[in-house]
Amino acid sequence: MTEDIKDIEALELRDLYRDGASAELLALIASVHAEDIARLLGELEDDAALWVYRQLPSELASDVLIELEGVRREFIVSAISETELVEVIEEMDSDDATDVIAELPSEDAKKVLDGIDEEGSLEVQKLLKYADDTAGGKMQVELVSVSGDMTVRQAIEVVRERADEVENLTNLFVVSGDARLEGVVPLTKLILAKEATLVKDIADKDFNKVTTDVDQEEVARIFQRHDLLSMPVVDDSNHLVGRITIDDVVDVIEEEIFEDFYKMASLNTGERVSDNPGRSFKMRAPWLMLNLATAFMAAGVVKVFEDTIASLVILAVFMPVVAGIGGNAATQTITVMVRGLALGEIGLGSARRVLIKETLVGVSNGLLIGVFAAIISYFFGGNIIIGLVIFLAMTGNLVIAGFSGAVIPLLLRWRKLDPALASSVLVTTFTDIGGFFIFLGLATIFMRTGIL
Amino acid sequence: MTEDIKDIEALELRDLYRDGASAELLALIASVHAEDIARLLGELEDDAALWVYRQLPSELASDVLIELEGVRREFIVSAISETELVEVIEEMDSDDATDVIAELPSEDAKKVLDGIDEEGSLEVQKLLKYADDTAGGKMQVELVSVSGDMTVRQAIEVVRERADEVENLTNLFVVSGDARLEGVVPLTKLILAKEATLVKDIADKDFNKVTTDVDQEEVARIFQRHDLLSMPVVDDSNHLVGRITIDDVVDVIEEEIFEDFYKMASLNTGERVSDNPGRSFKMRAPWLMLNLATAFMAAGVVKVFEDTIASLVILAVFMPVVAGIGGNAATQTITVMVRGLALGEIGLGSARRVLIKETLVGVSNGLLIGVFAAIISYFFGGNIIIGLVIFLAMTGNLVIAGFSGAVIPLLLRWRKLDPALASSVLVTTFTDIGGFFIFLGLATIFMRTGIL
Repeated sequence: MTEDIKDIEALELRDLYRDGASAELLALIASVHAEDIARLLGELEDDAALWVYRQLPSELASDVLIELEGVRREFIVSAISETELVEVIEEMDSDDATDVIAELPSEDAKKVLDGIDEEGSLEVQKLLKYADDTAGGKMQVELVSVSGDMTVRQAIEVVRERADEVENLTNLFVVSGDARLEGVVPLTKLILAKEATLVKDIADKDFNKVTTDVDQEEVARIFQRHDLLSMPVVDDSNHLVGRITIDDVVDVIEEEIFEDFYKMASLNTGERVSDNPGRSFKMRAPWLMLNLATAFMAAGVVKVFEDTIASLVILAVFMPVVAGIGGNAATQTITVMVRGLALGEIGLGSARRVLIKETLVGVSNGLLIGVFAAIISYFFGGNIIIGLVIFLAMTGNLVIAGFSGAVIPLLLRWRKLDPALASSVLVTTFTDIGGFFIFLGLATIFMRTGIL
Repeated sequence: MTEDIKDIEALELRDLYRDGASAELLALIASVHAEDIARLLGELEDDAALWVYRQLPSELASDVLIELEGVRREFIVSAISETELVEVIEEMDSDDATDVIAELPSEDAKKVLDGIDEEGSLEVQKLLKYADDTAGGKMQVELVSVSGDMTVRQAIEVVRERADEVENLTNLFVVSGDARLEGVVPLTKLILAKEATLVKDIADKDFNKVTTDVDQEEVARIFQRHDLLSMPVVDDSNHLVGRITIDDVVDVIEEEIFEDFYKMASLNTGERVSDNPGRSFKMRAPWLMLNLATAFMAAGVVKVFEDTIASLVILAVFMPVVAGIGGNAATQTITVMVRGLALGEIGLGSARRVLIKETLVGVSNGLLIGVFAAIISYFFGGNIIIGLVIFLAMTGNLVIAGFSGAVIPLLLRWRKLDPALASSVLVTTFTDIGGFFIFLGLATIFMRTGIL
């Protein structure tokens, strides 16, 4: 996405830190959004970041902490005092507080839970039970619930009491005496109803809800399909335990798409740009080791044709061209496939059509690129026969690229695995092996038959 | 994202089409969501899809048309009669109607605009002026505006009149006599206020708004930063012209992230999985031609070392290993960078830190992978000196991969371009050239000095 012009730079904050100019700092950041402050903190050295963070008023400090990324958040949380941390956490919604506390060493988490007010502490302890990528992990306990036997006037009184605490309120939830979820009342209906009407008479009985264990992807899908703004979360016995709001769902959607592309690039989905070098190294090394294995499989193909290359070294010059373009064509195909499958634009039912299409695209691009490759190779010291070999190999390899780039994501989906596991490493193995094999194989045949 | 278990398959619809079993069709799809019907239509042949579409009740037909992808939507729209199309479009919100009409040939668009009711027609004509990727292109004209001098009771009456027409109503907009935007009243405030209170006394005066020309990415950013549910859109003179709702923003966010990854994979952002082969061919061919040019640049490097390879053919076997792993390591780095820059986790201020980090990750992975590559090469017929060359070249190339994978997105951001333009094609050019040059160059030096 495009750049945002910032008026403040990390440099200025660094200067203020050196001068200990606390008042100037507060004046400077008065109109800066928490997200930008979080980014500036990410750019500062530890001591400067800590100093800046400590000057923030507690509500802002709370927003900034939520926005801070991985290691920087860990650092700030571990560097400030327990009292400071408690103060900051008390400003948070239950879901954000839970996220921060979940990252603490258990000793520290316990201290913070003892420090914050009892109601908040109980809420967080309940939320800590749920896996982060489930409805339970994404919900907040701040919501407005009313009894179906209340009048609209009474319900409005409940809204009045809770309005400060519950952000982006769009629905009231109707619960029975034992907290079982019975219905949903959109604010619009509440406004339009007569004050003496009973809440149960205006409540929607047919509404979307999820249990705490539902995967966050499924939650996001329900929100998108039904254009929801919030959704109640219930336990196995239909007791209302929380609500998920659309702003949390937006984050889930972003996270899920980026996870797909991380998988395609052979990255651990937990890696972040702010990770330290050691952590990034550990996360990427296993994938590169896997890549080393696949690369040597392709090298094994070249090895088979050592004699052919020995008698015509120019083949070694053109060989990576055929393999490389195949790899990029395959990456194009899997990217289109992963997007289409993720957004539900295609399903397994479209498999045949998509496979035919990608094979045809491979043939056409192969013919086109093959002709140009053959011509260029002539100026690189090739001859007409070598040009023909390049043309045929390029066409063949782009067909392999199109077909394997389409079929592997489909097979993964069919086996109920993530299509994004069709990583570049995997698919380029096919195009490397295919490219080397067809190109060097054809050259060998042409040489043995005396054509080349 | 994961698979959704569907109860209906395209096959069943095809059978119903053959039998002309209209009533069975309607019974079958009664509880199926529009999005799923759209996907099923995408899997059917033209005639079957058209038949199924024509059986749908007009409200459902309207929802399905919005969900249909590219070519399939074009086909349905061109195949149904003008009267059918008018009926379907009349069911849509103004923003969706505009999207469909914008795709029609201008002759047909005019006929449809004449066919739908006059108010709707005027709204759509207004919206057609705006580029699709701006606030004007994303907004809908369905909203509730009130005068600041109205009482809360009067405002509630306005809500009552408009409630059916305006979906996901969360805010009223306060306008002056000449339709200039003066404030925003969240529904919560409306509920809690006394009936005789004047609207202007409870309106927020400090609120977010955009003009029609603001880019959709910027709109999405404002929504995310401020956790908005809807935002008013004004013209240059601050006249209220529409509102954007969070559900449209969710689509924008998805689109923008996928665009980044399309760019990284050297794809035209307009390509869809449902495109026909000819269109996909035309969209991908230019990128592969560019790739052909960069691939021959790398081949030029190999060409320089033809003599070296001639005297030691095994080098041709290992050469693609060094280049290939460099390419994948570079892809890992740019993926992490593009995500971090897109989500604002890093900015230009972090450039130095990130470059040092990625270089360090490159060195460490290079040393690790280099050792294993050297060992494996021994079993492929290499010797200790060749192993050393591989080790050194792998280390050098993974440093190039880390550095170029980090610096190119940063340079693009610095030049106010999209970091995602740091495509695999571009970055693998560096790692191909770097890999071939270091590997073959070192081998040549070692040979000339008699070590190899």
